[in-house]
Amino acid sequence: MATSDKPVLLVIGAGAGIGGHVAARFAREGYHAVLARRSDEEGLQRLVAEIEEAGGSATGTLLNASEDGTIEELVEHTEHDVGPIHCALYNLGAQIGNRALHDTPHRTFELGWRLGCFGLFRLAHAAFPAMVGRGHGTLLVTSATAAVRGNEGQHSHAAAMAGRRMLCQTLNAEFAPQGIHVAHVVVDGSVDAPDTLGKLLGDRFEAYKASKGEDGVIDPAALAETYWHLAQQPRNAWTHELDLRPWTDTPWWNDIPIGAIDTGTSDSRGPRSK
Amino acid sequence: MATSDKPVLLVIGAGAGIGGHVAARFAREGYHAVLARRSDEEGLQRLVAEIEEAGGSATGTLLNASEDGTIEELVEHTEHDVGPIHCALYNLGAQIGNRALHDTPHRTFELGWRLGCFGLFRLAHAAFPAMVGRGHGTLLVTSATAAVRGNEGQHSHAAAMAGRRMLCQTLNAEFAPQGIHVAHVVVDGSVDAPDTLGKLLGDRFEAYKASKGEDGVIDPAALAETYWHLAQQPRNAWTHELDLRPWTDTPWWNDIPIGAIDTGTSDSRGPRSK
Amino acid sequence: MATSDKPVLLVIGAGAGIGGHVAARFAREGYHAVLARRSDEEGLQRLVAEIEEAGGSATGTLLNASEDGTIEELVEHTEHDVGPIHCALYNLGAQIGNRALHDTPHRTFELGWRLGCFGLFRLAHAAFPAMVGRGHGTLLVTSATAAVRGNEGQHSHAAAMAGRRMLCQTLNAEFAPQGIHVAHVVVDGSVDAPDTLGKLLGDRFEAYKASKGEDGVIDPAALAETYWHLAQQPRNAWTHELDLRPWTDTPWWNDIPIGAIDTGTSDSRGPRSK
Amino acid sequence: MATSDKPVLLVIGAGAGIGGHVAARFAREGYHAVLARRSDEEGLQRLVAEIEEAGGSATGTLLNASEDGTIEELVEHTEHDVGPIHCALYNLGAQIGNRALHDTPHRTFELGWRLGCFGLFRLAHAAFPAMVGRGHGTLLVTSATAAVRGNEGQHSHAAAMAGRRMLCQTLNAEFAPQGIHVAHVVVDGSVDAPDTLGKLLGDRFEAYKASKGEDGVIDPAALAETYWHLAQQPRNAWTHELDLRPWTDTPWWNDIPIGAIDTGTSDSRGPRSK
Repeated sequence: MATSDKPVLLVIGAGAGIGGHVAARFAREGYHAVLARRSDEEGLQRLVAEIEEAGGSATGTLLNASEDGTIEELVEHTEHDVGPIHCALYNLGAQIGNRALHDTPHRTFELGWRLGCFGLFRLAHAAFPAMVGRGHGTLLVTSATAAVRGNEGQHSHAAAMAGRRMLCQTLNAEFAPQGIHVAHVVVDGSVDAPDTLGKLLGDRFEAYKASKGEDGVIDPAALAETYWHLAQQPRNAWTHELDLRPWTDTPWWNDIPIGAIDTGTSDSRGPRSK
Repeated sequence: MATSDKPVLLVIGAGAGIGGHVAARFAREGYHAVLARRSDEEGLQRLVAEIEEAGGSATGTLLNASEDGTIEELVEHTEHDVGPIHCALYNLGAQIGNRALHDTPHRTFELGWRLGCFGLFRLAHAAFPAMVGRGHGTLLVTSATAAVRGNEGQHSHAAAMAGRRMLCQTLNAEFAPQGIHVAHVVVDGSVDAPDTLGKLLGDRFEAYKASKGEDGVIDPAALAETYWHLAQQPRNAWTHELDLRPWTDTPWWNDIPIGAIDTGTSDSRGPRSK
Repeated sequence: MATSDKPVLLVIGAGAGIGGHVAARFAREGYHAVLARRSDEEGLQRLVAEIEEAGGSATGTLLNASEDGTIEELVEHTEHDVGPIHCALYNLGAQIGNRALHDTPHRTFELGWRLGCFGLFRLAHAAFPAMVGRGHGTLLVTSATAAVRGNEGQHSHAAAMAGRRMLCQTLNAEFAPQGIHVAHVVVDGSVDAPDTLGKLLGDRFEAYKASKGEDGVIDPAALAETYWHLAQQPRNAWTHELDLRPWTDTPWWNDIPIGAIDTGTSDSRGPRSK
Repeated sequence: MATSDKPVLLVIGAGAGIGGHVAARFAREGYHAVLARRSDEEGLQRLVAEIEEAGGSATGTLLNASEDGTIEELVEHTEHDVGPIHCALYNLGAQIGNRALHDTPHRTFELGWRLGCFGLFRLAHAAFPAMVGRGHGTLLVTSATAAVRGNEGQHSHAAAMAGRRMLCQTLNAEFAPQGIHVAHVVVDGSVDAPDTLGKLLGDRFEAYKASKGEDGVIDPAALAETYWHLAQQPRNAWTHELDLRPWTDTPWWNDIPIGAIDTGTSDSRGPRSK
């Protein structure tokens, strides 16, 4: 029996960055947020408490998403005991920093895939039947630049995220006509996320943010507005993919200007003229 | 001297579809909408009247955007006599239906470029200096599937829209760091637009819409919500490109299922397994 | 001790289609071909015999590429006992036909990834160090339309092939400057491959080929010419990605014409005017 | 009456770089090359002489391709008086170096389109009917990175080249099934082309080439091999698009490594982890 009449937002990967802010945004609109993350019970309860203090409703659970059965059980439990999952957010990252091939062991590459791609497949497997039964549902997928191009050192991350992106396309092809909105969000800039980027950079995090200048790092609360907008689009006008980045960030398809020789070529790209 | 303290939305291509609905949406939020379209003074005044009846503010003008000087004068007049253009919407279409190469004369191809690509360049040329001076501005560009792939019969349209898309990228590269948000919206489905699709299909328009099923045609009011959202994104999280289509429409990158032989191949795409 | 002074081509996925024809093409130019495939010892020996009858040099082995250690041992054995791997061809398919999500079990999705993506990672891991040591090498990767877009029913295949494609980009980024040419070949049409498409279609294979018309199915010998060309490109002009299809096949980015209503729209794609 | 029984290669944009080398390569295989370029009669006659000294056959003409009627007359004259155009190469560049928007006048933008896009449309218009009549033909199109992404300062070039690319797709969609092979070659690196890059860089050309390192600039003779290969592909296995660059060049979709902070993020790209 559901504990609530509220529609449910299920967040896989609920840190203090995107996951937590999307949860808070949906909770503000009357959703019950179910927050799942791998570790840090204290941080998890802080997110739940913040949502409740703002008048919203949320519950949280620690979960090792790379382990078989975990996502599946959470979905079943949520649907059965909490309420219908109207929207699911797959927000797990798989970034491990830049690693040369010889420094990317088989198990690292496989774990990248388990978190970056397979977990999303498992979530869809578990959550879509009930959504199809209800005739509607939304799957929001946080993604990264690595989903659209493979940079040096990103073997594990790029292969996983490309699979994630293409899986969003196959899911959309099968399930959009059944009422499920799948949206793939290419986050092409650094996010002010203390639990991920913050932990990776440690002491250098504040200096890094300062180096990006004013509004040079994505505010996860701003991202959450766009996620909310996507979930509100009526089915006659669904967005499947969009990108986001700070105003001062070079999009992934552009070069960082190097200003070497300021001219161009007739045949092709030359110095600075790509 | 400006006639109003309101921020201005300038719409190039203000029919009863996307252009008119975006104008109404922004007017509802306190913008003064300047509507420009090629013909149909009566239809134009109807849009203005509707906005005013809803408590908003708008003015309209007929304009041949393919003629040198027209967009330029409108921008200058608006900035000088109406108010600062905070947001411009370039919404001119260049679709002429499917035409074989031999049925696409030189002047048709050139006109497609003048409306589909050159007009946007001219608008940016005219409107961006003042935006840069103010440190902010938004350029919303309606675009089409033809901007990302060239289908049979679309010589003029695809070449023009591809130029439009790439121009959005070059404008973004130069002007995003100067505070101007450029967004390219790939409308990948039919819009319930009486002035464009409606006129092309004529008597068949209602039957066509019915054939697409429930919510099978994009409601321009729904599109307008997404345009409004784009214009509201803070500069730390700007979207440059997104797509939209009805839930039942096959995205451009997918095949329309033909169901011939339901199998696949190991080497490559086979029947129905692309 | 190497058995031969010849440069070696290593083929992972050596059926009677692309793999066998590329092997024969390289053998004709003086390469020793090492052919590896999962099953059919008789078919394998037939390929070896054909190459030898034509005056070339080849050896073959059965290999379960999805099993840890198999590719690794083959590479080590080849480098040690046969000769330096100048070129490796990763030609394993991962197509299982169209399957709805509920008909795509977890292990199927995982196997798709093991064959479609992880095996390529393992091959690069095993083969690149020696190539880097020699200052040159080539990795040819057969790929499919599913690497660039996800169609209905292709969950496993598309997620795996997208990972394969992006992995080619990360490998290229790290290893091109070390002298290794990585080329990703998007085969966007049906191949006349008796061991894969032929087995999938069975009795219908000949009828299927006939239905495609004259030159309507890719001849693997023609593909082999392009693979050979790629391997011959000097390092000042390397191709990383190309596509191929028969003249009568609709490219993946185009619609199959449906001819419903022959017109277009101003706002966007309309009937037949994408 | 044709002056020759040889098949004809028509080159629009025949400088000492790609155009001249492709002409020489085809002439070596028995084609008569018709070379057209805007200026430098002496340079043109040198190319013709070199081809003839190598035992080949060629003629040359100066031509202002941006002027209406010029390409059309050349095609008609060639078909009527020289021989059937089996292959046409559109090799005109439209690069003008990096220019800010305010430094890109309307006429510059228009000229970019006339050379980069409209000229190709006119060539297809003029040359395709005879090819269709013969049931075969090849159109090779040299293109640039600007066709696939718009970088800062490239307003004119990118908008023109994007139109060129999409036009290749629409031409392919209509004419591939009629036997015409259209190939779009994305040259993603600097070419050792004295007439274009050489003239732009002037005195700095040799220093620039030296700065790129060994084999760091594309040899147009190497490019010509790939163009020749494309023209030889049988119609069951046609390539529509490929890219090329030197081994040491960063592909357009990758960042130039900046090495600032060597880590990554979970949410998205972080420093050096795009």
